[in-house]
Amino acid sequence: MAFSLPITVRFQHCDPAGIVFYPRYFEMFNLVIEEWFEQIIGVGFNQLHFVEYLGVPMARIDTEFRAMSRLEDIVIFALSVNSLGNRSINCTILATCDGETRCKADFTLVCVDLKSSKAKQWPAAIRAKLKTCYEEDQ
Amino acid sequence: MAFSLPITVRFQHCDPAGIVFYPRYFEMFNLVIEEWFEQIIGVGFNQLHFVEYLGVPMARIDTEFRAMSRLEDIVIFALSVNSLGNRSINCTILATCDGETRCKADFTLVCVDLKSSKAKQWPAAIRAKLKTCYEEDQ
Amino acid sequence: MAFSLPITVRFQHCDPAGIVFYPRYFEMFNLVIEEWFEQIIGVGFNQLHFVEYLGVPMARIDTEFRAMSRLEDIVIFALSVNSLGNRSINCTILATCDGETRCKADFTLVCVDLKSSKAKQWPAAIRAKLKTCYEEDQ
Amino acid sequence: MAFSLPITVRFQHCDPAGIVFYPRYFEMFNLVIEEWFEQIIGVGFNQLHFVEYLGVPMARIDTEFRAMSRLEDIVIFALSVNSLGNRSINCTILATCDGETRCKADFTLVCVDLKSSKAKQWPAAIRAKLKTCYEEDQ
Repeated sequence: MAFSLPITVRFQHCDPAGIVFYPRYFEMFNLVIEEWFEQIIGVGFNQLHFVEYLGVPMARIDTEFRAMSRLEDIVIFALSVNSLGNRSINCTILATCDGETRCKADFTLVCVDLKSSKAKQWPAAIRAKLKTCYEEDQ
Repeated sequence: MAFSLPITVRFQHCDPAGIVFYPRYFEMFNLVIEEWFEQIIGVGFNQLHFVEYLGVPMARIDTEFRAMSRLEDIVIFALSVNSLGNRSINCTILATCDGETRCKADFTLVCVDLKSSKAKQWPAAIRAKLKTCYEEDQ
Repeated sequence: MAFSLPITVRFQHCDPAGIVFYPRYFEMFNLVIEEWFEQIIGVGFNQLHFVEYLGVPMARIDTEFRAMSRLEDIVIFALSVNSLGNRSINCTILATCDGETRCKADFTLVCVDLKSSKAKQWPAAIRAKLKTCYEEDQ
Repeated sequence: MAFSLPITVRFQHCDPAGIVFYPRYFEMFNLVIEEWFEQIIGVGFNQLHFVEYLGVPMARIDTEFRAMSRLEDIVIFALSVNSLGNRSINCTILATCDGETRCKADFTLVCVDLKSSKAKQWPAAIRAKLKTCYEEDQ
C-alpha cells in the first residue's frame, strides 16, 4: 500500500492566477519523500545527510499536471515504488483531491555519497525497507 | 537560435548539501519562460495575465538532472521550441555551466483562458512570434 | 491563551549552512497567521480573499533571531494579540523549540479592501473574534 | 553612496492578490546583501561560507511595508551602513520604485564562525571594506 500524505494548499503555494504555482509542487514532492523516509524507511533526512553523509537527489522527474489546485484544497500525495536498483529507486507520486488527479510524477532517486558526490549502493538496512515498500506496491 | 538566460546560483537556491535544491530549478525555468515571453514573444506576464486574461501553465515537464550546480555557478538556460500547436507549445530548456549539462527539461505549455480555466487558441500575434521561434530552432 | 502551531523544520527550509534560511521563517509566520484565521477567527484565507475580497497584509514586522533552528527541529509558533485597532491588529509570534526561543516577531496586520487597495474597518464578525483573542491574551 | 540593486518583480514573487508575497522580499534582501558582499566587500558567499567558514546571519530585522509592489515593477534596493561593530554591522535597505518607497528594512548582521556557531570578529580585510562603506554612507 502506497505511503500517503495530505498537504493543504496554502497562500504561499499560490500564484497570481490563484492556483498552485507549479514549482511549489516539487517542494511538496520533496516533503512527501522526506516524510516517507522518516516514517516508513526509518531514517530521517537529518540522520541521512549529516550522520550517514548520504543524499537521495532526483536523477529525473517526469510530471504531468492534470487539473489545477486552489487555496485550501487538501491534496493527498500517494507515493508508490515501481522498481528498486542497487543504487537507485523509481517511484510515482499521485496527487489527488476528492478523487480527481491533480498531478502525477514519476521519478528516480539515486543514493549518493555526499563526500565523494558519487552514486553508491543503498545501505543494507535502507535497502531492506525500500524492498518491503516495493513488494507491497506490486 | 535558442533564447538564453544566465542565472547565477544564489544562497537561496541551495540546500543543506550545498547544491541547488531541485525545486528551485523549476522557479528558474519559470523565470526563463517569463523573460522569453517578455523579450522575444513580445508580451510580458503582467499584460498576458492581467490584461489579456491568459495563462500559460505547464501541462507536463520531464526533467533530467545530470550534474550538480553549486553556489555562484553561472548557469546558462537555453530555451528552444520543438513543436507548436494551436493551443500548446513544446519546448526544451537546456541548462549548462562551462559547457557541462546540468539539467534538461522538456515541457508543454498550454494557452489557457483564465476566466473559463479552459485551453484556447493562441492569439494570432503571439502565435506568429512562437512560429518564428520554432522555425529558427529547426 | 495564545494560538500555537508546531512546524517541523524540513529540508526545503534549510540553507547551505544547514540551518533555517531566515526568509523561510516569514513563510512560517504567514502559515501561522493563516491557520489562526482559519481555526480561531473563523474565516479561511480562501473565503477572506476570494469571497470577501479582504486581505490582511503586513504593515511592519520586527523580528529577532535568537538561536538557530536545524533540520527536523519541531518549532512551536505561539501567536498572541497585543492590541486591536479598527483597521489593524498588533501581534507577536514567539517561536520556541524545547523551551529555547528561536525567534520572535512583533507585527501589524492591516485589513485591506482588495478592490480599492485601501485599509478598511474589520468586518464585525471578524473583529469580535479578534477581540476575544486579545482579551484572552492580556 | 549606498550600494543599489534593481530587482524585477516576477511571477514567482507574487501571491494570489497579485502583489509581492512579503516573505519574498526577505529573499530579495538576502540577494542584495549577497551581491553587496561579492561586488563591494570583495568576498562572495561561496568563499565566505565554504572556504573561510564564516556566515553573516541576521540577528534582527525590522521591516516596514509602505506600498505594494506588482508584477514587473522594477524595484531598486539601496543598501547603506548605519554602524559597524567588531562582530556585527547595522544596515538599512530602502526599496523604491519610481521614487516611491515600497519597503524599508533596518537590520543587524553578525559575523559567525560556522564551525563553532559563535560570533567572532570580522576578518581585517572584510572589516576594512565595511568601514569604507560605513564612511561613505555618513
